[in-house]
Parts: sequence; structure tokens; C-alpha cells
Amino acid sequence: MKFYDCSTAPSPRRARIALAEKGLLDDIEVVEVNLREGEQRKPEFAAVNPYLTVPVLELDDGRRIASSTGIFHFLEAAIPEPPLMGRTPAEKGLVGDLEWRIEMDGFMAIGECLRNTAKGMAGRALTGRHGYEQIPELGARGRLRIERFFEDFDALVGGKRFLAGDDFTIADITALVTVDFAKWVKVGLPEDAANAQRWYETVSARPSAAR
Amino acid sequence: MKFYDCSTAPSPRRARIALAEKGLLDDIEVVEVNLREGEQRKPEFAAVNPYLTVPVLELDDGRRIASSTGIFHFLEAAIPEPPLMGRTPAEKGLVGDLEWRIEMDGFMAIGECLRNTAKGMAGRALTGRHGYEQIPELGARGRLRIERFFEDFDALVGGKRFLAGDDFTIADITALVTVDFAKWVKVGLPEDAANAQRWYETVSARPSAAR
Repeated sequence: MKFYDCSTAPSPRRARIALAEKGLLDDIEVVEVNLREGEQRKPEFAAVNPYLTVPVLELDDGRRIASSTGIFHFLEAAIPEPPLMGRTPAEKGLVGDLEWRIEMDGFMAIGECLRNTAKGMAGRALTGRHGYEQIPELGARGRLRIERFFEDFDALVGGKRFLAGDDFTIADITALVTVDFAKWVKVGLPEDAANAQRWYETVSARPSAAR
Repeated sequence: MKFYDCSTAPSPRRARIALAEKGLLDDIEVVEVNLREGEQRKPEFAAVNPYLTVPVLELDDGRRIASSTGIFHFLEAAIPEPPLMGRTPAEKGLVGDLEWRIEMDGFMAIGECLRNTAKGMAGRALTGRHGYEQIPELGARGRLRIERFFEDFDALVGGKRFLAGDDFTIADITALVTVDFAKWVKVGLPEDAANAQRWYETVSARPSAAR
């Protein structure tokens, strides 16, 4: 397998953490795609992923999975232990639900803020081959959304060790990457959010978080 | 189990089709939530789902799954046959990837267009308990995105029976709901897109599509 990554970017970090948690990251070829230099828009990479994004996981038969979501599904089926997506049907449903919610309301909101406000993103307010102009109001809305997401995050953690309970799951992965990504737009978990802060320390201390 | 639905809305239709495909829809209690009358914003429903959206699947132990994505995960684990999310690890990864892409670039783009342009959505450009003003430029961008998504759709189908190959999957469910939802903003699959039109006829003819 071959993993197309960008070590400084939030999106591929979600997949990279999952690969590390499944014990795969040291056994596969990792190809660094330099997003800051626009390498994802070069023909070589467009031939790998026409959506011009990382992560991409290329399987041994050449087929490619070009989203963190898809890579999570593949890894969970290929290497069931440790489970990252729940054990029982109810847990699987609840973990899938939670991870989706965190991606939509947290991770995507930051992208919306960053891509619609950063000077370097002018004309590229969305990923992909089509150029889209920035919409400043959307940038401001994204910031408001991520602030609200973080206000609610303490209650989402509650007294649990991890977001879905006793097991570390893809919900924790996406939330951890969301919290670190939010630093790019200078938004963070409230200092006095004790549950959220404890959770963040716990998940950040895992070896996979440093990969 | 109890299924909170809205028979006229696109989001719960994704979950409803999956419930029908798994043979469950006639055996569970269905609660109609009238979104047009704003029933989702009443305290009774806010107690069920604080995100104020349908679908919600309430399990027998009272736990609730409040997204199509979460409901797909639950159903696939609870009732493995017929599989809607792939059989092998590679298939599971590719189906998950495809469904995510269709949701992001298709389904979400229509929501973005509709909610930022329809008069009745003023002040509610996003679902949930926070009011957000409409951003007309975002409405226009959503329309452009869905047009481009449909331009590429014929190639996505190609010569395959279903989007992921021989099996009907959640990728077909989300794509079918996307095509029908797009009628609300008067965008459709190109008439001359032969593969796309053939696929649409095939999936629309399934009994689950009429539920």
C-alpha cells in the first residue's frame, strides 16, 4: 500500500492517525505531497486523485481511496483490532454519527473560515480542480460555527474517557485534528472546559497523535 | 426501534431507503416530524435531538442516532444482508469514500443553494438551534457546484450497474436522493448523460425508492 500524505495538513492527519493506531504506518510507503507548493495541482498528482486532495490510500491492486472517511472504513474492515469504529451495532452507529457530526460542525467549519479568509487561498476557497472565489461572510460564519462547536464540546465529552466511551475511536481522531486545526484560525477549546481539556491531554499523549 | 422521519424531506429519505432495503421499515414505529410547520424546533423534538434534524433512529435501549451516516453504520452491522456498504475491506473503503464524496459535493451543495436562496429559509441558512443569515453568494456557489457535480456524474457511473459496481450501496442511496433533491432548485442530470440516466432509472425503480 502507498499513502499520499502531507505532514503539515489536517486532512491527511486524520487518516495518518488511524493508520498508526492500526499499526500500519511503519509498513507502508508514504509519499509526501507538498500542499504549500501546490504539488497537488500538478498533473502527476491529478492522475492519482482528480479531486486534488490528500489523503489518498493506494491499495496493492492499484485502487485508491481518496478520503479519510473511506480510509477509516477500509482500515476497520482490513484490521479489526483495535476497533476504532465501535464493537456492537449500536456502538458502530453512535460512533459513525458522532464522527460525522464533528466533521460537519467542527472540521468543516474551520476549513470554511480559513479558506475564505486567508490571503494565500484567494481563488481557491474550495479544494478541487475548480477555482472558487472567497466569500468573506462565509469565513466569518465559519469562525462563529467553530466557536459554538467548542462551547458545546465540554458537554460532548462529559465524564467519559473518550468521546464514545471507554474506547478511542475515529470520533476522537477527527476531534483531535479539529482542535489542532482550529489553532490556524486562533480559536481553541475554552480554558475552563475541564472535561474537554482533560480529553485533549489524553488523546494528544497517544503515540499516534505525534505521527 | 423508533424512526423520526419527514416524508417530504431529502435527509431522512436516505435513512428511510436504507431501512427499507434492510427490510426493517414495516416493523418499526415511524414518527412523522413536520419540518414545514417547524415541528423540529419545538421543545418536544429538541428533547429527542438537540440538533433539531431528522432522521433520528431511536434504539430499543433509548439511545439515538441522529444522522443518515450513523444510521447506515448501525444498520449494516445489525443486519449484514444485503450489504449496502461493500463486502471486502477494499469495497468497504471505496463505498465509504464514494458516499462521502457524493454527500459533500452533491447533497450538501444543494442544501447550500436552497437554504441560502429560498425566502422561507431566511435566518435559517443552516440547520440547528443557531440562526444563520443567508449568504446569497453561497447560494449561487452551491448551484454552480451541483451543476458541476452532475456534469461529472455520467463518468462516475460509467458502464457499471450501480455506482460501486454490481451491488446497490449507500452511494446509490445518497446519489438518488441528491438527484431528486436537486429538482427543488431546478437542476438535473444532463438529458444526454446516458449512463447517468440509465442508472437513475434503475435505482428509482427499486421499491425502496418509493418509500
